Amino acid sequence: MNHKVLILHGPNLNLLGAREPDMYGAVTLAEIDRRLGEAAAERGVELRSFQSSSDGALIDAIHEAQDWADGIVFNPGAYTHSSYALRDAIAAIDLPTVEVHLSNVDAREAFRRRSVIAPVCVGKIAGFGWYSYLLSLDALLQLLGSQ
Amino acid sequence: MNHKVLILHGPNLNLLGAREPDMYGAVTLAEIDRRLGEAAAERGVELRSFQSSSDGALIDAIHEAQDWADGIVFNPGAYTHSSYALRDAIAAIDLPTVEVHLSNVDAREAFRRRSVIAPVCVGKIAGFGWYSYLLSLDALLQLLGSQ
Amino acid sequence: MNHKVLILHGPNLNLLGAREPDMYGAVTLAEIDRRLGEAAAERGVELRSFQSSSDGALIDAIHEAQDWADGIVFNPGAYTHSSYALRDAIAAIDLPTVEVHLSNVDAREAFRRRSVIAPVCVGKIAGFGWYSYLLSLDALLQLLGSQ
Amino acid sequence: MNHKVLILHGPNLNLLGAREPDMYGAVTLAEIDRRLGEAAAERGVELRSFQSSSDGALIDAIHEAQDWADGIVFNPGAYTHSSYALRDAIAAIDLPTVEVHLSNVDAREAFRRRSVIAPVCVGKIAGFGWYSYLLSLDALLQLLGSQ
Amino acid sequence: MNHKVLILHGPNLNLLGAREPDMYGAVTLAEIDRRLGEAAAERGVELRSFQSSSDGALIDAIHEAQDWADGIVFNPGAYTHSSYALRDAIAAIDLPTVEVHLSNVDAREAFRRRSVIAPVCVGKIAGFGWYSYLLSLDALLQLLGSQ
Amino acid sequence: MNHKVLILHGPNLNLLGAREPDMYGAVTLAEIDRRLGEAAAERGVELRSFQSSSDGALIDAIHEAQDWADGIVFNPGAYTHSSYALRDAIAAIDLPTVEVHLSNVDAREAFRRRSVIAPVCVGKIAGFGWYSYLLSLDALLQLLGSQ
Amino acid sequence: MNHKVLILHGPNLNLLGAREPDMYGAVTLAEIDRRLGEAAAERGVELRSFQSSSDGALIDAIHEAQDWADGIVFNPGAYTHSSYALRDAIAAIDLPTVEVHLSNVDAREAFRRRSVIAPVCVGKIAGFGWYSYLLSLDALLQLLGSQ
Amino acid sequence: MNHKVLILHGPNLNLLGAREPDMYGAVTLAEIDRRLGEAAAERGVELRSFQSSSDGALIDAIHEAQDWADGIVFNPGAYTHSSYALRDAIAAIDLPTVEVHLSNVDAREAFRRRSVIAPVCVGKIAGFGWYSYLLSLDALLQLLGSQ
Amino acid sequence: MNHKVLILHGPNLNLLGAREPDMYGAVTLAEIDRRLGEAAAERGVELRSFQSSSDGALIDAIHEAQDWADGIVFNPGAYTHSSYALRDAIAAIDLPTVEVHLSNVDAREAFRRRSVIAPVCVGKIAGFGWYSYLLSLDALLQLLGSQ
Amino acid sequence: MNHKVLILHGPNLNLLGAREPDMYGAVTLAEIDRRLGEAAAERGVELRSFQSSSDGALIDAIHEAQDWADGIVFNPGAYTHSSYALRDAIAAIDLPTVEVHLSNVDAREAFRRRSVIAPVCVGKIAGFGWYSYLLSLDALLQLLGSQ
Amino acid sequence: MNHKVLILHGPNLNLLGAREPDMYGAVTLAEIDRRLGEAAAERGVELRSFQSSSDGALIDAIHEAQDWADGIVFNPGAYTHSSYALRDAIAAIDLPTVEVHLSNVDAREAFRRRSVIAPVCVGKIAGFGWYSYLLSLDALLQLLGSQ
Amino acid sequence: MNHKVLILHGPNLNLLGAREPDMYGAVTLAEIDRRLGEAAAERGVELRSFQSSSDGALIDAIHEAQDWADGIVFNPGAYTHSSYALRDAIAAIDLPTVEVHLSNVDAREAFRRRSVIAPVCVGKIAGFGWYSYLLSLDALLQLLGSQ
Repeated sequence: MNHKVLILHGPNLNLLGAREPDMYGAVTLAEIDRRLGEAAAERGVELRSFQSSSDGALIDAIHEAQDWADGIVFNPGAYTHSSYALRDAIAAIDLPTVEVHLSNVDAREAFRRRSVIAPVCVGKIAGFGWYSYLLSLDALLQLLGSQ
Repeated sequence: MNHKVLILHGPNLNLLGAREPDMYGAVTLAEIDRRLGEAAAERGVELRSFQSSSDGALIDAIHEAQDWADGIVFNPGAYTHSSYALRDAIAAIDLPTVEVHLSNVDAREAFRRRSVIAPVCVGKIAGFGWYSYLLSLDALLQLLGSQ
Repeated sequence: MNHKVLILHGPNLNLLGAREPDMYGAVTLAEIDRRLGEAAAERGVELRSFQSSSDGALIDAIHEAQDWADGIVFNPGAYTHSSYALRDAIAAIDLPTVEVHLSNVDAREAFRRRSVIAPVCVGKIAGFGWYSYLLSLDALLQLLGSQ
Repeated sequence: MNHKVLILHGPNLNLLGAREPDMYGAVTLAEIDRRLGEAAAERGVELRSFQSSSDGALIDAIHEAQDWADGIVFNPGAYTHSSYALRDAIAAIDLPTVEVHLSNVDAREAFRRRSVIAPVCVGKIAGFGWYSYLLSLDALLQLLGSQ
Repeated sequence: MNHKVLILHGPNLNLLGAREPDMYGAVTLAEIDRRLGEAAAERGVELRSFQSSSDGALIDAIHEAQDWADGIVFNPGAYTHSSYALRDAIAAIDLPTVEVHLSNVDAREAFRRRSVIAPVCVGKIAGFGWYSYLLSLDALLQLLGSQ
Repeated sequence: MNHKVLILHGPNLNLLGAREPDMYGAVTLAEIDRRLGEAAAERGVELRSFQSSSDGALIDAIHEAQDWADGIVFNPGAYTHSSYALRDAIAAIDLPTVEVHLSNVDAREAFRRRSVIAPVCVGKIAGFGWYSYLLSLDALLQLLGSQ
Repeated sequence: MNHKVLILHGPNLNLLGAREPDMYGAVTLAEIDRRLGEAAAERGVELRSFQSSSDGALIDAIHEAQDWADGIVFNPGAYTHSSYALRDAIAAIDLPTVEVHLSNVDAREAFRRRSVIAPVCVGKIAGFGWYSYLLSLDALLQLLGSQ
Repeated sequence: MNHKVLILHGPNLNLLGAREPDMYGAVTLAEIDRRLGEAAAERGVELRSFQSSSDGALIDAIHEAQDWADGIVFNPGAYTHSSYALRDAIAAIDLPTVEVHLSNVDAREAFRRRSVIAPVCVGKIAGFGWYSYLLSLDALLQLLGSQ
Repeated sequence: MNHKVLILHGPNLNLLGAREPDMYGAVTLAEIDRRLGEAAAERGVELRSFQSSSDGALIDAIHEAQDWADGIVFNPGAYTHSSYALRDAIAAIDLPTVEVHLSNVDAREAFRRRSVIAPVCVGKIAGFGWYSYLLSLDALLQLLGSQ
Repeated sequence: MNHKVLILHGPNLNLLGAREPDMYGAVTLAEIDRRLGEAAAERGVELRSFQSSSDGALIDAIHEAQDWADGIVFNPGAYTHSSYALRDAIAAIDLPTVEVHLSNVDAREAFRRRSVIAPVCVGKIAGFGWYSYLLSLDALLQLLGSQ
Repeated sequence: MNHKVLILHGPNLNLLGAREPDMYGAVTLAEIDRRLGEAAAERGVELRSFQSSSDGALIDAIHEAQDWADGIVFNPGAYTHSSYALRDAIAAIDLPTVEVHLSNVDAREAFRRRSVIAPVCVGKIAGFGWYSYLLSLDALLQLLGSQ
Repeated sequence: MNHKVLILHGPNLNLLGAREPDMYGAVTLAEIDRRLGEAAAERGVELRSFQSSSDGALIDAIHEAQDWADGIVFNPGAYTHSSYALRDAIAAIDLPTVEVHLSNVDAREAFRRRSVIAPVCVGKIAGFGWYSYLLSLDALLQLLGSQ
């Protein structure tokens, strides 16, 4: 059976490539999605990708995922540090969720060291640019027992 | 004269019934609205109900309420603990607002003990599941002088 | 079967009516007890009321309640914010307890926003003056299954 | 008209003279009351003195004072630092209250620097041993307009 | 060359004029925009104005500004104090942004004294009602070298 | 010469055996006193035991102990964490006092890790149920030089 | 009637131009005063300027201003973050005071984000170098009703 | 032998009478000094009075006092809360110093509750307007053994 | 069956007797081990004693204990306050561990009041010098059911 | 060219498999090293593995790594939260280091949410049991440009 | 070329010798200056010494030093802990500054452990009485390359 | 008589010269020891030098020093900020200890501003690279009375 995975990108990630490339790398979000798509195809996995800078839209996407997905790879961006509503959304559904970050957030400003999302996720991968997503996908598939 | 009341449900409450039933009960949001509707009819009160997981949409609903409602029963969900914008929305209009929670939030994680909404509400009812809403409606009506 | 409920009033509540009426209302404690008595009679419930400004006497009343009562409506007054001994008393017995306040304590001084009692209570009702007690009684009866 | 003043001594003050004389002086509580009595007589003032180590008993004494006294000189002892119930008792009545301490509490352990009583008192006198009481009496009389 | 400026109004600012006039003044948002428009015309500047109470919509407006604007005058309202996502949005684009407030936020509640937006803005003007916007426009134009 | 020891039990300890047996054990307070009595008899020591849930009554008992006892074994219960008045009572008399707890308080909720009593006690024994008392008695006797 | 304004420069501002030009700009204090003088002349306003690195001298200047000035533009420099005495000086007189900073202080070290002066000022302008002063003058004149 | 006392007034006290009379009273500093002078004459005490809003000038006055004075009555104004240098000045000389305040500082803003001066003073009198000074003088004389 | 117990001494305890005898007593570590050996012999218990000032060596000793010991009496010295690695070592094995201290650590410097070890121990005995160890041994044996 | 990688295991990891398997999994450290060895062989990478519970030994291993390794995969265990010396060791050498954890540390006790190591690492992978190591190896190789 | 050094003494240092000799030693400031003068002569260095208890005067002296001195040895006394204005003065000029203290400030009261001056100094020497100055002079000369 | 001094180097100092030369200088530890050796020879002092990155080994070296040394110059490296065990080791022996640092630790990351070692040392010298050691040696000799 093929696993289905939601790749969820939080606020400002649509600017990737253009935005502070020293911090976040020069790869665009479309390119990340393309690379993940290729890797997913190799692994026999179905991906859907969604980006929004709106807290509410991200929550809605998480709610809907419980109808079709087996797990989530979620980059909550700056909502990582403050959105208890996103945390409750993940807790409310029954899907393993991997927290992913492009940069090594624990090595940056103090406020970025606090994740209110982490306690409801299965694990966290941060600091490897676009490759963090690929590692997260593999981590999720390992958990789902398909790798 | 019949009072008109906005029942406002915050983030993730659309999942009620399915979401962590040990914590939030097995009653769905639609069922809560139905029960409140019955109770309102008995009391000669007109209710309108609205749910959103978006901070901005909740603020808009509060703004609009000042054109038609006499008061608000508001479950701000996880926005209780962080949304100064919601707080300012309630302060900006001139309607008594009751803060309502399904669970006893002060008995849970530390972050849930802080309500940034409370200082602009008339009172707070928490911990009685769907019945918290009914008590809140009665509390509001008592304040409005119709009970 | 008739439920039996202890209405427990904490420190300074004996001054109600005279004390800071802008904050606490003009209804005396005796009048609150009378109104609750009427409501209890309508609901077929037996009430006993007790007030003390002594931490120890309140603890003793809670201990004794386990011999006769089915639940407690408790206004801990200023002990809400500091009395771990009262908290342990409630935890030690096996009776559902509703925390009740006349004013909306979460909207007042910072020290009043902390309840050390809340984690051992089933719920909290605050901000509706004497009517908070009536709502609390209804909340307790709903929990006890008699309403 | 003769003013009437309650001299209220908090916890452990009954041990004065014996208790840590380096910190609190060698004068007993009875002797303090006697000296205050003499001074009151000279000033045409009526004093009543009460000591208790029980939070509740002190609150009761404050409540009763509003029936007969014009002001209170209050040494709350260690309750100074934690008793919101005593604070509420003073706020609930309508009598000017002077906070008095034998030792200079702000110069001792960190916990003694916090007075939860101060915001409801008219002033504070600390550090002059038994003489703090006499100064407090004069301060109160000045406020009452009799000196 | 004419400079182009985005005037960005955050949550609840649509209520201006009606909302707490003692704090925020009696001028409506439309009137502010009109006055700014007049001033801009005098200065040969093109303005576009946008208001939203949604975090996500504000972020989107900031993203789009990089395609047409030379700078931003931004009143983040209550998001000032909590929205790291808005902060990242400003940091992600390459436009000078002036933080503007109607009231003197540093003189109000403690939570309003913290700006998570400030570190990515060029400056801050607060406390002069609608006139804060005009000063901010002039400050931005000075920075852009057109005044 | 036979030593005399006050065994002082603080708030809620009268409920032992019935109260949360997983935490505090199934032995009643009377049974603890009986076992301590037997052990004291073997050691030629005279015990008096007192329990109260009132802060003031415990302080009075400590004051009186200085007239007859050689030391105190004191379980301050929840007053451990907040009662500066009890602390001052122990400091005011000249008797070695052992702080005793049934459960390992430092391993429980954060608030239980703070003892305001400890700085005026000679030592602390916690976590061994009723046997904590027996160890405390032996510790005290060792200090008094009789063992 | 011509308004009269005190331009008050706090500690270290005499070094402007030479001092950390990346942070504070290359314009000297004399040049700032000259530019303000020109602008004041255009606006029919009388300015007096004073600089001191002494807390006491700044307080004295504020005191004296109440005899001749209609308002103050005040750059408190590093005293912004610690001088309650300066705060009391402004509160003690009856003149509107604008807090001005060359750099965007809220974007710098944590200690610079705290202004103990702000609560007694009418508003704050920061981050625009010498131009902050000119904006502050205009803000003050707008408040005084002369622009 | 006649005692000699320095009456030391800190920052902004020169404005007394004019400054916030609701908080500080309508008596001028000159009038306070006159009344203290009268009282001192009655008590056979020599007073010298000094006011400055400069931290350094106050320190110098304290240093000089050790050459002629027997004690100090010191109102450190807002320096109470921050000036470790003043604290060290008092600690460095060998004169008993009474901390005096017109208002009840512990009942005002949080920052006014902290006295860095207190640990080096013999006592504190606050809240009785100009009469605080007279009480402080009596307290000091009592300590010096002349009353 | 004879119980086997590891007596584990942490950093600096090898200096006992010589080190700050006012605080820690004049008994050497060898003498403590000898006295414990005697007591163990009387109780039919086998002891092994180990001291190290190295965090890693203590962890290794704890690991090895699970192969031969029934319980541990552990004085973690200053590692009590900071070594999460020691805490994890105790949690990782399945042996009841008693935390023991010579001095009453909760009565000393603030940093000594925090035990990161306590949450994984069964109980704590502190303040009775070398005798703390003997009480701890008895407490452990009681737990193991051999006394 | 073959890359060489140090796999560094911190305190208590030698107990893996036996230690709290619910938290850390049932795979032993030897088995993890074997699986990593296989994966490394497939990728043409040379691994060396080292475990110690001693802070100093881990620092020494890091120092030595700069003579032979191209990067480090480091599980600092409980030293993650407190060892500034380990942090300095990593900062002192010039090798990319990946922080790896078996459990999702940010979802556990508060003290485990702080990593003093993170600011000197390139990234962090946590929560996937033994598979965290394999992902970390791949992340490091990606960084080294060999994958 | 001879180096020129400003020896700057902060508040209360004029009292040295007389002031708390147990803490600060019995050597007067004049004697320290004399000894430093001798040492400077030996090293071919020109010294100027200045003492003030006024924050502003110390800032002025630092400003003037940039016209003639090559470096500063600065004992900021109690201003060390609070004077951001002094910190800015040092940052504003371009001279290496050594922070010097007679006592070991990090070993005293908590407030003395914070130096707001340190981040703008090249180093710190504390605890060696008058000899701290001599060491600081040598440290500065070493930095200036003359030793 | 010749004094004997232990030069004790803490964690990571073996890497000096290679490690972050911008921060710590380019001089190796061997070279520092050589220079100190020369200086000691000139001063007739005997030095022994020891470096370890192990907390336990440093403690052992301190213990042994009491058998042969007259004082210690100690660079605790990163253990400065966390090792209460090292602090206790210094307190346990009777030798004056100078805390030395290559960099000006109070000017770096917040965690480096806290020294748990300082309260048991005689003084502190920081910021002068290798020369800090030489100054510390001179400071120690001055204390020992040999210079």
